[in-house]
Amino acid sequence: MSTAVAPKGLEGIVATNSSICWIDGDAGVLSYRGIDIHELAQRSTFEETTYLLWFGKLPNQAELAEFSKKLAEGRKLDPKIIELLRSVPNSATPMQVLRTAVSLLSIYDADEADNSHDANVRKSYRLTSQIAMIVAIFDRIRKDKNIVEADPSLSHAANFLWMLNGEKPSATATRTFDIALILHADHELNASTFAARVIAATLADIHSAITGAIGALKGPLHGGANEATMRLLYAIDKEGADPVEYVKQMFAEKKKISGFGHRVYHTEDPRATHLRRMSEELSKAAGDTRWFDLSQRIEAFVKQEKKLNANVDFYSASTYTMLGIDIDLFTPIFAISRISGWAAHVIEQHDDNRLIRPRAEYVGPAYPAAYTPVSER
Amino acid sequence: MSTAVAPKGLEGIVATNSSICWIDGDAGVLSYRGIDIHELAQRSTFEETTYLLWFGKLPNQAELAEFSKKLAEGRKLDPKIIELLRSVPNSATPMQVLRTAVSLLSIYDADEADNSHDANVRKSYRLTSQIAMIVAIFDRIRKDKNIVEADPSLSHAANFLWMLNGEKPSATATRTFDIALILHADHELNASTFAARVIAATLADIHSAITGAIGALKGPLHGGANEATMRLLYAIDKEGADPVEYVKQMFAEKKKISGFGHRVYHTEDPRATHLRRMSEELSKAAGDTRWFDLSQRIEAFVKQEKKLNANVDFYSASTYTMLGIDIDLFTPIFAISRISGWAAHVIEQHDDNRLIRPRAEYVGPAYPAAYTPVSER
Repeated sequence: MSTAVAPKGLEGIVATNSSICWIDGDAGVLSYRGIDIHELAQRSTFEETTYLLWFGKLPNQAELAEFSKKLAEGRKLDPKIIELLRSVPNSATPMQVLRTAVSLLSIYDADEADNSHDANVRKSYRLTSQIAMIVAIFDRIRKDKNIVEADPSLSHAANFLWMLNGEKPSATATRTFDIALILHADHELNASTFAARVIAATLADIHSAITGAIGALKGPLHGGANEATMRLLYAIDKEGADPVEYVKQMFAEKKKISGFGHRVYHTEDPRATHLRRMSEELSKAAGDTRWFDLSQRIEAFVKQEKKLNANVDFYSASTYTMLGIDIDLFTPIFAISRISGWAAHVIEQHDDNRLIRPRAEYVGPAYPAAYTPVSER
Repeated sequence: MSTAVAPKGLEGIVATNSSICWIDGDAGVLSYRGIDIHELAQRSTFEETTYLLWFGKLPNQAELAEFSKKLAEGRKLDPKIIELLRSVPNSATPMQVLRTAVSLLSIYDADEADNSHDANVRKSYRLTSQIAMIVAIFDRIRKDKNIVEADPSLSHAANFLWMLNGEKPSATATRTFDIALILHADHELNASTFAARVIAATLADIHSAITGAIGALKGPLHGGANEATMRLLYAIDKEGADPVEYVKQMFAEKKKISGFGHRVYHTEDPRATHLRRMSEELSKAAGDTRWFDLSQRIEAFVKQEKKLNANVDFYSASTYTMLGIDIDLFTPIFAISRISGWAAHVIEQHDDNRLIRPRAEYVGPAYPAAYTPVSER
């Protein structure tokens, strides 16, 4: 059989057709179903954007109302899921808990064994609502706070902040969070989405695919980057260090600075533009520009020294911190958003499926290596 | 950026180097670390084969004893895992339960956050022992039977059968099962292993990778095939139908026959050779050759009509049935074996990592598509 050797990490290899997301890495363009991310960030909502990702077009008013209603109806968790969230130690990371809870969800989902297009859409509504709930509820439980009931009158963004904090979020917080959800909703064949498609391509169910995607997102080379950025900002602030000197020292020690550079973008990540602006606005409104200022100085230095641009993760760190969100919820929030894209990709994969099964280049001991009995080894 | 379009499903694309498994699909050769699968099936054990997969060489007597001891020491489950297995409904499928339980295991694994080579090996011992235990214990629980304590004096194969059935397995049953574990232990970049590597390549932990792999294995195009084969045999037997006529009718209805053909092999799957022989031996020893005879007639007809060879799944169906194993445990048993290969691949990925992130060919609405306000849609 003929084989072709791909670059390491499948870099630059087109693994599938998709009509969901178009990226021009050289021009710094990100679009969902052809609509520019800047338009969506400025004018759309997470609900509308998710509709666009799942159904390929923007909804009219009736469709949007129906969509929001279905999301709100999905804000129910089987008591067994709550039981799991209560049973794990408070020290469990939210990503471990989310991955486990989403896997458990499938056991209580009546459509589990049905991979049809319609069943996948039904499960996607529930997964989108339930992932946000799981993150909020586990955070309440681990902090010994009461669980906040979902409010069907709230948007997806507002309901999450409500269930997380137990108080109705401000319009600014809701809109900021909503934009963050829009910006993270999809990104073509990023590692977690690709993992979801590889799993779905065996005709495994959507819960299996999303469980795997959450596992992939958990990795520090993927979802974990903004956590690392925020830890860097905290470390610099705690030491009262000069950020440029601090980063210079890290470079001297061959350490990587998280939140810079991207496999696909060779110019500014278009999502970073919005997160930078939101970080600045929230900081100024709060009268505390510490994290934004530090971020800006690091960004300028890394750009000058390494010619690397800030990516989506760099300013989401300070943005989420200004929203009062704990550092170990940054990656779960990524999942709360990316479920919309994961679901779109699993639905697309199942609609026109082929098993994803590449080959490996064997570099081990030559065949046939001898089998010697254990007594002779 | 330059991209290259791969065939659908990444067929024939070399996605990575690996020194674990070499397959020659045209010659029908499968080898682990260069050693032919026929040698291993005839002369090795699952413990020895797993050592070979993880450490790249066959163990000497002391190494093998130490390895077996560590596997036996891994036969411990946190009570919280048992609690989960007791809390899910009996109707949950073993694969849903296994996927959830393995994800939960990570919360109780002291090495969870450590992706070093040594920690990955430590976790691999535990995962190998614990996956087998989870499958056996959940099966006992759902049948209202008592949980059987692990026996550290038994081999991996014998201990699983012991914990599953509550009686010490015969030498024949143990050896048959042991060979089945050897045959399924690795298969290069099959879909579940590839999913595990995609997840691990974000530097996510091994539990995340294995959880995703279990999800992928669950799909009917991957682990589910021998279940489908056995359901076919049951259906033909129940109707008292002629197997050739039955399969002819399925072909006329454009139905797929599970257990035939393979993405990689274009000749007999070398694993099928052993499973056919074991199916025959068990059938003759039991004086009940019903499933073997049916299988043989179907195999001959499909070969003649479609030029398709039986693959690993076809004769594992009747082999497992002759071992008294329930049909919905076939895929979990695949996981009990394949964890050895999954672990080897995750360790190899982490040892020389690069993010696996291909591209998609965009075929959606042309960019820039207009964003129209909802009132105008």
